[in-house]
Amino acid sequence: MKVSLPKGTRDFLPAQSRKRKYLFSRIEQVFQRFGYVPIETPVLENLSTLMGKYGDEGDNLLFKVLNNGDFLAKADEQALIERNSNRVLPDIAKRGLRYDLTVPFARFVVMHQNEIYFPFKRYQIQPVWRADRPQRGRYQEFYQCDVDVVGSESLMYEAELIQIYDTVFHDLGIPVEIRVNNRKLLAGLAEAAGVPGKMMEMTVAIDKLDKIGRNGVLEEMVRKGIPEGNALQILNDIDLAWNELEDRLLTSQSGTLGVSELKQVWNYLDAITLHNPVVRDVRLARGLNYYTGCIFEITLATDKVQMGSLGGGGRYAELTGVFGMNDMPGVGISFGAERIYDVMDELELWPKDLDRQLDILILAMDEACLQAAFPLVSSLRAAGLRADLYPQPDKFKKQMKYADAVGTPWVAIMGPEELEDNQVTLKNMATGEQQRVSIREIPDKIH
Amino acid sequence: MKVSLPKGTRDFLPAQSRKRKYLFSRIEQVFQRFGYVPIETPVLENLSTLMGKYGDEGDNLLFKVLNNGDFLAKADEQALIERNSNRVLPDIAKRGLRYDLTVPFARFVVMHQNEIYFPFKRYQIQPVWRADRPQRGRYQEFYQCDVDVVGSESLMYEAELIQIYDTVFHDLGIPVEIRVNNRKLLAGLAEAAGVPGKMMEMTVAIDKLDKIGRNGVLEEMVRKGIPEGNALQILNDIDLAWNELEDRLLTSQSGTLGVSELKQVWNYLDAITLHNPVVRDVRLARGLNYYTGCIFEITLATDKVQMGSLGGGGRYAELTGVFGMNDMPGVGISFGAERIYDVMDELELWPKDLDRQLDILILAMDEACLQAAFPLVSSLRAAGLRADLYPQPDKFKKQMKYADAVGTPWVAIMGPEELEDNQVTLKNMATGEQQRVSIREIPDKIH
Repeated sequence: MKVSLPKGTRDFLPAQSRKRKYLFSRIEQVFQRFGYVPIETPVLENLSTLMGKYGDEGDNLLFKVLNNGDFLAKADEQALIERNSNRVLPDIAKRGLRYDLTVPFARFVVMHQNEIYFPFKRYQIQPVWRADRPQRGRYQEFYQCDVDVVGSESLMYEAELIQIYDTVFHDLGIPVEIRVNNRKLLAGLAEAAGVPGKMMEMTVAIDKLDKIGRNGVLEEMVRKGIPEGNALQILNDIDLAWNELEDRLLTSQSGTLGVSELKQVWNYLDAITLHNPVVRDVRLARGLNYYTGCIFEITLATDKVQMGSLGGGGRYAELTGVFGMNDMPGVGISFGAERIYDVMDELELWPKDLDRQLDILILAMDEACLQAAFPLVSSLRAAGLRADLYPQPDKFKKQMKYADAVGTPWVAIMGPEELEDNQVTLKNMATGEQQRVSIREIPDKIH
Repeated sequence: MKVSLPKGTRDFLPAQSRKRKYLFSRIEQVFQRFGYVPIETPVLENLSTLMGKYGDEGDNLLFKVLNNGDFLAKADEQALIERNSNRVLPDIAKRGLRYDLTVPFARFVVMHQNEIYFPFKRYQIQPVWRADRPQRGRYQEFYQCDVDVVGSESLMYEAELIQIYDTVFHDLGIPVEIRVNNRKLLAGLAEAAGVPGKMMEMTVAIDKLDKIGRNGVLEEMVRKGIPEGNALQILNDIDLAWNELEDRLLTSQSGTLGVSELKQVWNYLDAITLHNPVVRDVRLARGLNYYTGCIFEITLATDKVQMGSLGGGGRYAELTGVFGMNDMPGVGISFGAERIYDVMDELELWPKDLDRQLDILILAMDEACLQAAFPLVSSLRAAGLRADLYPQPDKFKKQMKYADAVGTPWVAIMGPEELEDNQVTLKNMATGEQQRVSIREIPDKIH
């Protein structure tokens, strides 16, 4: 019999699960210190909530859940005969699996608007599902980790979220660069270069600078309808030093606004100590259909491992408009939890004791010892130690093999002699050293 | 526009989410102290893994996930025309949502048998889905919380799991009774009464004693083919004092085995201190098709709230046989997390500070104060406090309203005067007392 998992899904073995719990818990502690509160939404959402929110591609990649019972009973006859999957779909499936955390959050805010208060600062760490083609490092079931504040336009929150990025990555030991841009600066760049209607085309092109080079970007802009002179102007502007760029952008209204917003954010940032560089980068593009103000992106600041962005986010004017509730501006960031996990692995940043399942394992050499060891392991656990007892008086070698497998820094051996003296032989698994100690000494000895 | 959630699913607001996290974390800490390790399995499983494992009713209640893309392309023509949902199903859905934690655990053990070691002690706290008719307290998406040890027949683990129940409920402050039976005793009861082939019918009947009374149970046994004399014998036996019952059961081979197993478990238990009563109850029935030795059930030991069983479990001979891997005995228990949550609510057992989102909230009275308060809140967070800053210099009354809403024991007010003196006005939200303190004194003052 062959058992398997659906493609793009994973089991987590204990060592992985412990690491994931550690990662989420460290991130969560920072969120809580910064005054953010947890919410959870169900995995199942109505398809009417999800469909049309992620574009046509998103609609295709959504996992749909079959109605229970005789699901074909109400399906359209003609559509069935024609095998028209799209037309049959709404008749046989009314629910789907969560695709991201943003749309459920918007639905949550609309449904619970009278149970929460604004500004509402929430974090959410839950899995999402996408029927993408699975590949190395890309899964169909994976975690997202979002933190947002909605119901306020205060730029203090931009500074706060930048500090959250800084604090989390510092806590985890991952050196990063926090890149910041503002959608209004991008609009200003296009305006200042005389092509105000071409902001999107311009941004998509300059985002590829690292990949296709100056000439490639120039060609693309021209191909997308930006006259060569204006395109050259843009390429010139993005190479300006920041204060020169600011002067240049002040010739445009959007640019002036964007410069002012970034200045206010930096006023807050200048008053605190940050551990990682925060840089303004007018080339940064991100979710331009959605974000309206500052945008953020995290890049790894080490050569030791290659990895794309570890997170991103930005300011949006309208979270809940799509559900008919207006005037709900916000700003949020997300952490690329799966990638951060891989970076922690590559850079060996996990705490050393995370692969230890136990503090101490007791090995009993005969049935009488096993009986005596049971209250002993119980008292060690009551003292807060992760303690265990091998369940039967097997041969010493077999029991030691188990001790090696589970990962324990200490083993306490109880044989007939030890039992008579109310002692154990305490073995340090790292050094191999052994000593006889009385039972009541154990907690002190292994600390 | 009307937004809603699928029936039987729930959002968790911050206060609920915090309580749930607290509950799972307390339970998890006990599991870890007892040497159990976490695993996680995906929400999506192949239907080939799930179907046929939960009976016909389970197959119906499984949530099935539509294949992506043109799902009807490969559906059987005749079945489509006939609207034969059952025949179309395997053509259009190959995955389903996790229905419990046991079958995925069995699949996990088979797939990872060379990456884990035995006895394998695992816990798992994850949501499951069942298309049951939703009703008060019953959901289609809910959490299960299981702890099992597989690969050992040692009865020490029965005692250990009883102690885990005892420790968890004691930690949470919920008074319970831990009821223990053994399937072999039930077989012995039937044998001793001369109806060895009627164990199942007998058990199902006596399980209803509280509901339908002695006469009802007698009638049911007779109706199910147990002669009246033998049925009366059974009713007599289950009322015997435990030591008399033991003597009686020693006349049967199964009974002798069951008595011996319980004796060994009690040998372990007698050597430790328990906080809740552990009682042997030969009337206890539970998952008789699956369990082969000891069975456990948790009942609430208080009249203050009515609630069914808070957990149960038992010893099974074969976890993985259904996937073709034999000789994998185990014993496990589960915690009814959703019910335990409700009991905690009813008995008001949550820690008092769990509804506090913050340790301190800073209110700034003008723009200059806001600028100065930003590094202040930053330093309080760095000191480990959950600190927040209202994001703009709104009217005092509006800011205080927010302070009341978020739940904070302390508010620090910073106006122009305070700013000049490098101080804040610290307000105790419970007593209303206010005092001016210097900024560096804050952490000490609020501890």
